[in-house]
Amino acid sequence: MTYSVAINIMPLKDLLDPQGKAVLGGLHNLGLNHIGDVRIGKRITLQVDAESEAAALQAGELAASKLLANQVMESFEVSII
Amino acid sequence: MTYSVAINIMPLKDLLDPQGKAVLGGLHNLGLNHIGDVRIGKRITLQVDAESEAAALQAGELAASKLLANQVMESFEVSII
Repeated sequence: MTYSVAINIMPLKDLLDPQGKAVLGGLHNLGLNHIGDVRIGKRITLQVDAESEAAALQAGELAASKLLANQVMESFEVSII
Repeated sequence: MTYSVAINIMPLKDLLDPQGKAVLGGLHNLGLNHIGDVRIGKRITLQVDAESEAAALQAGELAASKLLANQVMESFEVSII
């Protein structure tokens, strides 16, 4: 069966996110002053052929840890969608 | 109250995603041949000061539609996390 797997990759909380800071400035310029903090990451969706949800999740985790996420600077979470 | 709002921005289904195609090649090179399709988008998290979840969601939708998403090429969804 084919499962849709989503991988969310975000910069680690302790690290500065200069791209997010720039976007926050843009939002404030648009008048959205009640927005406080912006962090920008990636969302990757995969179609995985697997026998079970658990196997599909495992494939997603393998893909994230081996190729997609840089775990020095980013954390990731994998889910079925 | 401060709400955490997540915005997922993905390329529209009908559009080619060359970045995703490149990553798919990389995953196949790693031996992950049961992964079929890869699409790469953005995930943006905001901290929003708002009176209710609905108001926070509305702020997120405004931010996405006015600045963050290019609706010619991308679709977005907003959720509270």
